[in-house]
Amino acid sequence: MDFRLSEEQQAFAQAARDFAIGELEPNAARWDAEAIFPREAFARAGQMGFCAIYAPEDIGGLGLPRLDATLVFEEMAVYDPSTTAFLTIHNMATWMIGCWGSAAVRQQWGPALVSGEKLASYCLTEPGSGSDAASLSTRAEKRGSAYVLNGAKAFISGAGDTDVLVVMARTGAAGAKGISAFVVPADAPGITYGRKEEKMGWNSQSTRPITFDNVEIPAENLLGEEGQGFTFAMKGLDGGRINIATCSVGAAQGAYDAARRYMTERKQFGQTLAGFQALQFKLVDMLTHIIASRQMVRLAASKLDEGDPQAASYCAMAKRLATDLCFQACLDGQQIHGGYGYLKDYPLERLVRDTRVHQILEGTNEIMRVIVARQLLEKGADIR
Amino acid sequence: MDFRLSEEQQAFAQAARDFAIGELEPNAARWDAEAIFPREAFARAGQMGFCAIYAPEDIGGLGLPRLDATLVFEEMAVYDPSTTAFLTIHNMATWMIGCWGSAAVRQQWGPALVSGEKLASYCLTEPGSGSDAASLSTRAEKRGSAYVLNGAKAFISGAGDTDVLVVMARTGAAGAKGISAFVVPADAPGITYGRKEEKMGWNSQSTRPITFDNVEIPAENLLGEEGQGFTFAMKGLDGGRINIATCSVGAAQGAYDAARRYMTERKQFGQTLAGFQALQFKLVDMLTHIIASRQMVRLAASKLDEGDPQAASYCAMAKRLATDLCFQACLDGQQIHGGYGYLKDYPLERLVRDTRVHQILEGTNEIMRVIVARQLLEKGADIR
Amino acid sequence: MDFRLSEEQQAFAQAARDFAIGELEPNAARWDAEAIFPREAFARAGQMGFCAIYAPEDIGGLGLPRLDATLVFEEMAVYDPSTTAFLTIHNMATWMIGCWGSAAVRQQWGPALVSGEKLASYCLTEPGSGSDAASLSTRAEKRGSAYVLNGAKAFISGAGDTDVLVVMARTGAAGAKGISAFVVPADAPGITYGRKEEKMGWNSQSTRPITFDNVEIPAENLLGEEGQGFTFAMKGLDGGRINIATCSVGAAQGAYDAARRYMTERKQFGQTLAGFQALQFKLVDMLTHIIASRQMVRLAASKLDEGDPQAASYCAMAKRLATDLCFQACLDGQQIHGGYGYLKDYPLERLVRDTRVHQILEGTNEIMRVIVARQLLEKGADIR
Amino acid sequence: MDFRLSEEQQAFAQAARDFAIGELEPNAARWDAEAIFPREAFARAGQMGFCAIYAPEDIGGLGLPRLDATLVFEEMAVYDPSTTAFLTIHNMATWMIGCWGSAAVRQQWGPALVSGEKLASYCLTEPGSGSDAASLSTRAEKRGSAYVLNGAKAFISGAGDTDVLVVMARTGAAGAKGISAFVVPADAPGITYGRKEEKMGWNSQSTRPITFDNVEIPAENLLGEEGQGFTFAMKGLDGGRINIATCSVGAAQGAYDAARRYMTERKQFGQTLAGFQALQFKLVDMLTHIIASRQMVRLAASKLDEGDPQAASYCAMAKRLATDLCFQACLDGQQIHGGYGYLKDYPLERLVRDTRVHQILEGTNEIMRVIVARQLLEKGADIR
Repeated sequence: MDFRLSEEQQAFAQAARDFAIGELEPNAARWDAEAIFPREAFARAGQMGFCAIYAPEDIGGLGLPRLDATLVFEEMAVYDPSTTAFLTIHNMATWMIGCWGSAAVRQQWGPALVSGEKLASYCLTEPGSGSDAASLSTRAEKRGSAYVLNGAKAFISGAGDTDVLVVMARTGAAGAKGISAFVVPADAPGITYGRKEEKMGWNSQSTRPITFDNVEIPAENLLGEEGQGFTFAMKGLDGGRINIATCSVGAAQGAYDAARRYMTERKQFGQTLAGFQALQFKLVDMLTHIIASRQMVRLAASKLDEGDPQAASYCAMAKRLATDLCFQACLDGQQIHGGYGYLKDYPLERLVRDTRVHQILEGTNEIMRVIVARQLLEKGADIR
Repeated sequence: MDFRLSEEQQAFAQAARDFAIGELEPNAARWDAEAIFPREAFARAGQMGFCAIYAPEDIGGLGLPRLDATLVFEEMAVYDPSTTAFLTIHNMATWMIGCWGSAAVRQQWGPALVSGEKLASYCLTEPGSGSDAASLSTRAEKRGSAYVLNGAKAFISGAGDTDVLVVMARTGAAGAKGISAFVVPADAPGITYGRKEEKMGWNSQSTRPITFDNVEIPAENLLGEEGQGFTFAMKGLDGGRINIATCSVGAAQGAYDAARRYMTERKQFGQTLAGFQALQFKLVDMLTHIIASRQMVRLAASKLDEGDPQAASYCAMAKRLATDLCFQACLDGQQIHGGYGYLKDYPLERLVRDTRVHQILEGTNEIMRVIVARQLLEKGADIR
Repeated sequence: MDFRLSEEQQAFAQAARDFAIGELEPNAARWDAEAIFPREAFARAGQMGFCAIYAPEDIGGLGLPRLDATLVFEEMAVYDPSTTAFLTIHNMATWMIGCWGSAAVRQQWGPALVSGEKLASYCLTEPGSGSDAASLSTRAEKRGSAYVLNGAKAFISGAGDTDVLVVMARTGAAGAKGISAFVVPADAPGITYGRKEEKMGWNSQSTRPITFDNVEIPAENLLGEEGQGFTFAMKGLDGGRINIATCSVGAAQGAYDAARRYMTERKQFGQTLAGFQALQFKLVDMLTHIIASRQMVRLAASKLDEGDPQAASYCAMAKRLATDLCFQACLDGQQIHGGYGYLKDYPLERLVRDTRVHQILEGTNEIMRVIVARQLLEKGADIR
Repeated sequence: MDFRLSEEQQAFAQAARDFAIGELEPNAARWDAEAIFPREAFARAGQMGFCAIYAPEDIGGLGLPRLDATLVFEEMAVYDPSTTAFLTIHNMATWMIGCWGSAAVRQQWGPALVSGEKLASYCLTEPGSGSDAASLSTRAEKRGSAYVLNGAKAFISGAGDTDVLVVMARTGAAGAKGISAFVVPADAPGITYGRKEEKMGWNSQSTRPITFDNVEIPAENLLGEEGQGFTFAMKGLDGGRINIATCSVGAAQGAYDAARRYMTERKQFGQTLAGFQALQFKLVDMLTHIIASRQMVRLAASKLDEGDPQAASYCAMAKRLATDLCFQACLDGQQIHGGYGYLKDYPLERLVRDTRVHQILEGTNEIMRVIVARQLLEKGADIR
């Protein structure tokens, strides 16, 4: 057992920190306020390898463990969890294409996704199927050497701004086993993007519903085989949950850093806030919960890297714990800032708004518990 | 002991509910999104008596108990806590003018404030004095039959849009006893309003800093006597805290109503959300905490109405409890809505953003505890 | 709306306080340590009217509202929640006999139960039916002018030390409507008491299982009519839940009183504990939660007194909230005492052990939520 | 970074598990009920090496890292946190003697402490100095080649049953730097043991106050040099806090195991408890918090093993988090058991009582926060 990062890992994290300070910190507030999807920043991230950290090397990805990916994402989320979160989604979709795409698809999309020149969206959720993802009703029908897609997706991150969609659609019967995954060019005829959603946060990512009206794609755009799509989608989400949890850890670290600084500067009642015990305790609890969350995330990432049969449960627990504790840490950091924490001049309120959705998406924190409970009580899994 | 509202009280609450449904519900989202300060709505509230519910009758106020005021504010906050909260601030300032204003001032401002034709701001906080309000440094100097004000205020609700300011300024030595309160016309020469603050919520209220540069006002604009200002400000805040707490109760009730409805409509896994025990429990806890908060607020209001010597402590406890529990209830209501709770199409995310500041302002929830602790441990007060 | 106690109510509470200080405070620790069931204390409570506070006047009860009963129970529980809790169970059973007993039964048992000379147990729970009380399997068969009982009860407070049992038994089909309630002399032939349970707390109440082996009782010992037993049992529990919640409020008040005193006396780091902000805040939160709990309990009691159709939901919410918050307050009071809080020389650890079970019995706090959820979501009740 | 235990570590943990099942599980309830200090069990633990896991090899200790010690303690605490906690105290005291004892002392006491034939107590706390340990007033005066001790200690685990005491006493001026540490034979003339404390739990460990009345010990019994005692005591406690935190993790694991089993067996409303979502979620949260606690403890142990300059802060955070979360997990496990959880027939209530004190001793959880806050805010330490 060894909790230390290797020198390579530390250097990788440092590179991410530098990138974040250079690219994200100066822009995050503006991208949020003006709802800008920062394509150029993603391209620059791609130059660092951050668009394909764990994607396979044969499409140009770094092929690194999930654990290493969390190092990068955490450093970036300190300054901008929304932009970072989209980057993690792109990584997830790129990894799926890299793992299960046909040679043609990998060749066509791999390099551009890896470089960040092109960006990918992950399309699972539908208006009527959120938590109950396996009930999705978008259909893909095989017609000769093509599939034809019809249906609708909702809450798609990047939709309307990305170049390629990984779409889960039904090719068979009801239930999870009737679902397949497809790579769909974002500008394929028949695709319509709905109104850009107005959201509480995550404003640097556009979110739009998508309609598929007889969208035809080559059969080679199927990922793996028919019926494997839900499995792929869930494997993607295992990593996705670690990523989102990491974004919460980073954001909370940002809130903590700001709160600690503020406590040593702001004076009230003749002393700095650092002198008030109740605030001291709040700060310490923030730090403690951030560290605990980070360890849970890394543990889950390592389980995934090891191929542990219970990796999905560890990912679910890490996502639940980290997104809950770190959202609370953001609130606490905001509270320490008093009225200033409510203003957009400070990053706190943005960190609160951005991390709020982490408790909801990629499976709500309620669904995380359902996933683990099933293992513990139905499957009798001995997780420890 | 009797927990029942009288028929008059029920009718009064019903009138407020009708007003809220007619005036606030259809507009709240827009006022938030476009940061509109709805002057006309306040004027219509004034026609109902809602601009001066507990202000004295001799300036035209309804002269009702604080308890009755909470009934009105709660109903309105169900739909729009931000707009309602400003209305409560106007009520507080109007009450202060009504109680301690000179005859001239009461005559000059009373009718228009009561009718909602003119609006008032409460100016206590300064950039360097938030929680430590008694350290404020804005000065008012007596020059002949006038006072001349110099200094700066921050986080002033309505500033730039209101017509009159109740300003706490130092006329004497350091500390609370050197502070006096003044009625200052909002357009007096020498007043400058700063940039409108960009905030997480409370967008239907403009918030601006104010600078006073040799602002001259007649001596009759002093409230009460010199040195009484801090006492007045704190008396105002006792009621103000009940009001803000009530706004949290109302908002949480709105979140609860929406969540209950959503649970009976939204289906996942072949049944409505109402069938899932974990969500049932969340909903019940929301309701329980709302009811407990409401009772605490009403108890505090009744202590204030009775002139209980510990009323300030009850107000502080009610504000702390209600704003914490009801913010959590808003978060829970949002969580029940899943991804939809994060969208501006639903009121949930707005209720979360608006109620967040209630834990911070009119004394942070940390200061609330300081107030009570002093009574319990220094003064030996026996509160029960 | 009026939160004030009448002078009569205050005097009644004062009488209870005096009784508690005289009878309970000096003995509570010993009764706990030696597991003594204090029959004499109950008899003296009976002389004060405390054995039949809300039982009907025609059996000699005081016929007071539930609200008044909470005043008495709270004062007593400050010093001894375990003994007080048994007294509330006796009150509940006595009330049931007073309300629905035949004239013969009321005459036979009423006076002695009212005076506290005889004591009653409430027998609902069975080894296999706890939360799911309506599935109980003890049977009562009509044979001529008698009923013959067979079956077993578990977790019966006072069993083996009390004189009469109110027993819920099945006379009809499965489900709630097949259940009837009976008054059974505790020494009836065929009754066997099991081993006295070793418990975490509530040691001044004996708890034993009971076996009924062809126990014959006169038909007139049926309460009301056949099939009404479950309804009676639940009506009893509505009040019972208020009572238990009140015991938690009283115990937490005791913990708070001790903690406040300790903080002003104990010195560390050159000052009393009262000087440490984090402890100040803990103390204030204790008080706030106690007051909120008390108000919820009184609100529920008043709903029951008014015959509000949603009284059961209010009782369930009050029980859930008060027993949770007040258990936490006891833990906090213990924490403030540091190591001393873990010793039996101080009342804190006993208050923690005694109140722990309030979250479990008379319906677990999970069942409380089930009760309310059913009203909100299935019955569409509009509780507010 | 590697979260996996080595094969040796797994084998070591397995040995501890076997020991615990053989020696502790069958006896824990009885030792608690009858307040038995199980000397023989400690001797058998010594045969396994468990009495000196991290004590230096030159006194016969295993010289293993703290991380390995947590593996053993956790397995044992699953069945008996009280007995295990005493074993950890013995390990701490033995380690101190092994590290800083003179050759004579190490020779005299080492082997017997390592084998568990003799047992050691750690004597820091005094009646007037608990959290403020550095203010202790027991004095040790140098007289020729001896020290003479006078004063009193309180809350000493094992006192009266152990063979040797590690006593912190003042040899110099006020404050931490005037304190020295001594090895004192438990039967030295002048030592008096007070009444055995009656406690909420930790009953298999005797706790007694100790009075020193001119207790003379050889000068060679000084640990290290004069003035180093407080530093030694705190270094001991760093490890001690990890150990106590580990005992909480183990106990919570025991509660979780029992709750999971119970949920699959106990039926209510026609299904096992495993079918109720709210209980499922409670169980999952228990597990999640146990895993998070375990990781924090291991991280802290590893920081201590590495000699990280912030190890004390990590230990403090781990102790705070793990003892809070795991106490709550024990309460939750008890709640899942319903009424049975309140009975001594099941281990739950004992686990609750035993782990409660972990939030209080070896520095209260409030003091843990003080320790970390000082690093963050006064020393500017960058902990992450």
